[in-house]
Amino acid sequence: MEGKEEDVRVGANKFPERQPIGTSAQSDKDCKEPPPAPLFEPGELASWSFGRAGIAEFIAAFLFLYITVLTVMGVKRSPNMCASVGIQGIAWAFGGMIFALVYCTAGISGGHINPAVTFGLFLARKLSLTRAVYYIVMQCLGAICGAGVVKGFQPKQYQALGGGANTVAPGYTKGSGLGAEIIGTFVLVYTVFSATDAKRNARDSHVPILAPLPIGFAVFLVHLATIPITGTGINPARSLGAAIISNKDNAWDDHWVFWVGPFIGAALAALYHVIVIRAIPFKSRS
Amino acid sequence: MEGKEEDVRVGANKFPERQPIGTSAQSDKDCKEPPPAPLFEPGELASWSFGRAGIAEFIAAFLFLYITVLTVMGVKRSPNMCASVGIQGIAWAFGGMIFALVYCTAGISGGHINPAVTFGLFLARKLSLTRAVYYIVMQCLGAICGAGVVKGFQPKQYQALGGGANTVAPGYTKGSGLGAEIIGTFVLVYTVFSATDAKRNARDSHVPILAPLPIGFAVFLVHLATIPITGTGINPARSLGAAIISNKDNAWDDHWVFWVGPFIGAALAALYHVIVIRAIPFKSRS
Amino acid sequence: MEGKEEDVRVGANKFPERQPIGTSAQSDKDCKEPPPAPLFEPGELASWSFGRAGIAEFIAAFLFLYITVLTVMGVKRSPNMCASVGIQGIAWAFGGMIFALVYCTAGISGGHINPAVTFGLFLARKLSLTRAVYYIVMQCLGAICGAGVVKGFQPKQYQALGGGANTVAPGYTKGSGLGAEIIGTFVLVYTVFSATDAKRNARDSHVPILAPLPIGFAVFLVHLATIPITGTGINPARSLGAAIISNKDNAWDDHWVFWVGPFIGAALAALYHVIVIRAIPFKSRS
Amino acid sequence: MEGKEEDVRVGANKFPERQPIGTSAQSDKDCKEPPPAPLFEPGELASWSFGRAGIAEFIAAFLFLYITVLTVMGVKRSPNMCASVGIQGIAWAFGGMIFALVYCTAGISGGHINPAVTFGLFLARKLSLTRAVYYIVMQCLGAICGAGVVKGFQPKQYQALGGGANTVAPGYTKGSGLGAEIIGTFVLVYTVFSATDAKRNARDSHVPILAPLPIGFAVFLVHLATIPITGTGINPARSLGAAIISNKDNAWDDHWVFWVGPFIGAALAALYHVIVIRAIPFKSRS
Repeated sequence: MEGKEEDVRVGANKFPERQPIGTSAQSDKDCKEPPPAPLFEPGELASWSFGRAGIAEFIAAFLFLYITVLTVMGVKRSPNMCASVGIQGIAWAFGGMIFALVYCTAGISGGHINPAVTFGLFLARKLSLTRAVYYIVMQCLGAICGAGVVKGFQPKQYQALGGGANTVAPGYTKGSGLGAEIIGTFVLVYTVFSATDAKRNARDSHVPILAPLPIGFAVFLVHLATIPITGTGINPARSLGAAIISNKDNAWDDHWVFWVGPFIGAALAALYHVIVIRAIPFKSRS
Repeated sequence: MEGKEEDVRVGANKFPERQPIGTSAQSDKDCKEPPPAPLFEPGELASWSFGRAGIAEFIAAFLFLYITVLTVMGVKRSPNMCASVGIQGIAWAFGGMIFALVYCTAGISGGHINPAVTFGLFLARKLSLTRAVYYIVMQCLGAICGAGVVKGFQPKQYQALGGGANTVAPGYTKGSGLGAEIIGTFVLVYTVFSATDAKRNARDSHVPILAPLPIGFAVFLVHLATIPITGTGINPARSLGAAIISNKDNAWDDHWVFWVGPFIGAALAALYHVIVIRAIPFKSRS
Repeated sequence: MEGKEEDVRVGANKFPERQPIGTSAQSDKDCKEPPPAPLFEPGELASWSFGRAGIAEFIAAFLFLYITVLTVMGVKRSPNMCASVGIQGIAWAFGGMIFALVYCTAGISGGHINPAVTFGLFLARKLSLTRAVYYIVMQCLGAICGAGVVKGFQPKQYQALGGGANTVAPGYTKGSGLGAEIIGTFVLVYTVFSATDAKRNARDSHVPILAPLPIGFAVFLVHLATIPITGTGINPARSLGAAIISNKDNAWDDHWVFWVGPFIGAALAALYHVIVIRAIPFKSRS
Repeated sequence: MEGKEEDVRVGANKFPERQPIGTSAQSDKDCKEPPPAPLFEPGELASWSFGRAGIAEFIAAFLFLYITVLTVMGVKRSPNMCASVGIQGIAWAFGGMIFALVYCTAGISGGHINPAVTFGLFLARKLSLTRAVYYIVMQCLGAICGAGVVKGFQPKQYQALGGGANTVAPGYTKGSGLGAEIIGTFVLVYTVFSATDAKRNARDSHVPILAPLPIGFAVFLVHLATIPITGTGINPARSLGAAIISNKDNAWDDHWVFWVGPFIGAALAALYHVIVIRAIPFKSRS
């Protein structure tokens, strides 16, 4: 059962691309791209590290929805915003949980906790298709359970206050909401790629040490900006969990925005990283 | 008196499990579990580092209650929430103090400052029973003194405003309060285990460097979510100190919630870490 | 196409001045100043890393204006400040974005995202004149596009609410506004110089690891202090982008303040760093 | 002029006590106390690093008072607290500036920016008496100038709104105010000692890397708790600068509290560190 010893890192899965901090000699090898992950990797299905990674994504998505939706409920049910942690507190809850959970699960599953992140890293061939699908399913199940527990505390109030479901706010077109989700997810996935870039890690020792912090901040910042527009999705599992548990018509009407937007944003970030920053398509020709 | 030189680390006590950052060769040895701490270790009772660790836990719990209860009082006595640091400021006080105090005392006592953390690490056999009991007693004494000093500043107001004692808020059942304490403590102790995991430390150099920061953030985030439900305990010493000094009937009625909940949450986090993440029970068989 | 492999670091461009963390021997060489960057460097114009650096500055300035101006709009259109992230949330948006973007682009372009920072580093001869002009143009273009997207979401409201343009607030003289911009930019550029000082990097291993965090905090802190005075510029690209897209007369009347102030502040910080902290002019004589 | 090359570190002055991160062999020597600094060290008076350190303390205290007092003014002059960064924003301004300035000046002067910190480190014999007096004088001069610039922006309003001067709030006795200053300064100086402890640095590589962050957080947390009591001094230079520039009778009546309290708190923290944590008095006998 050597499989137990296999572990994954922030945003990657099988190919240890980070140079230990403090090695002074940085050979050429460090700057080489790791080979792309295969689409299907039958071997990993049987390993404990694969099963465990999914459980870790489930638990992380569960805790993420539980804490954030509970914070949203606390703000909405307070008589006035000043008697609660406020909208800014909601933004901290989302960003802070991502910081803490990426920190905790990075060594187990890569710390995605977000189907858009998994999709972006899959496009860059950082993990196999089987693993990507498995992660997304576990993230969505965890998110549904997390929102469900919050509803269990106060079912009537949960329903009355919207349950933290994402909708495009009145006064904004669907197009604006979609745009906000695309750019917001771009900010997040661009930060994830920057934080886990194999080449930068080989050179800049300050990158991996702080990786979970800027990723969490990116989530916080997008919430500061777009809570008034869409309530901020940028994470389809979070939107799905809240939509299923609150099960409101208007949440379902806009629901496609919170899958299409984040996936487009993640794809653009993957493209930007691969083509502009790393220039990978041009490298084989040089 | 060589005992003076013995020191402990974040969440551990006697077994130095961390590889110095920058050592490039990571031998197999680094990935081995340290042996479980014995239940009773008579030798440590006479050492200066043992006595000192208890004093450090006392002082840390004292400062923790002093700063946080004083912040709660400041918010409660202000004419309106906007003229104070607000509920979010209370959450920062709790989380920020845990960050600063874990940072300061990690090298002296392991930086627990919380009977639930001590209990969880004891279950994972990271410290002896004698040390665990000693820590919990010192944490509770420190917490009582810290809340007492705040009461000394303005005894009447302290009594009138509830003294920061934890109770289950109207509109929530005891069961919801208990659930909130269980999951909240799970978030905290899960983060503590992730931050101090011997195996991850051996591989991921970014883990120990940031350890106190995600632990403090975990406390901050749980407060954002559950202050409206229970005032957020997740630390029996904090709940006990505030309950004894304010000595209100309703604080005592719910008081069991703030011992049973955190201890269950810590036990679940220890189980999750030992069984799912580390798979320790299955390892001897492999 | 070896040029692809050339990269730059926080606040520097071509001369790798940082010692890898963990090398114990620190030779005298590490403490030597890198040679000043030439004014014109024809070679870099053809390299991919030069082109890519400008694209990275464009994207970073775009995302910076998009998130921050959207946050400002969200606060201004809310019925009362308590129902939004508030002025403090605006300060977090500006500071947090600089933290995240410096982190993401430091390895690609040096992570300036601000003509005043580029100007200050140019005065200290950390980058060539051609590169400085190229960066400033790309930053301004990115900022204009970022503010433009925000306007596209809600054109009428954007115009009505001022579009985040910087003006000197009523009750303050132009001189006070200019002074606030000078000192505010000094704080920022002084932090940038401290974080990227070649000499300190050679000795103090904690400097580069945290570099983007204090730089982001400096921006956050200046916003806390001077939003009531000028709305806080300290970044001519940010002021220009908001002014062009909102295109209000009063924004243009004060616009010179937001170029002259930051450039003076950056020049003072460069002088302070070069003359007082590093004593470079006196070194050749010693 | 070799003196130019001498530099100091966080909270220390002449004796480099930190082991470079990543050196795996930690000899016994690293755990030895550095010798106490002499009371008078005539040699340092002529060195450029000594003069420069005082200038750095002056500039840091200047920027500290400028940003923080300007933030206080912005909050006080706003029609209601919600239209400003609020009391919590004031706490962030104080704590954040200490974080950024300790980061920037740690390598030049040790980054004290506070006579109480200088006094505490002097008691622990970390710097000479001449250097301590020189630092305190420069800190006070810088603080006076910083508050003066803020007054220059709006002299009448500054006077009307109290100018950020520290006083014991109505409803609290002088004794409570003194107690709040003593414990608050203890929290700060205890954190400074923990962050710069030679022994811990030799063992725990995560200590120096994060040093400025917990020190800044300690200042933030004390402000959260004690702004309602004294406005929070814990820094005699800050209290003196605001008192001289606002020059109000009630600020002078309580002014002794903001020197006596911080100095007692710093002395207690030095005692706690030297006697309990390090057990230095008992070591020579063992």
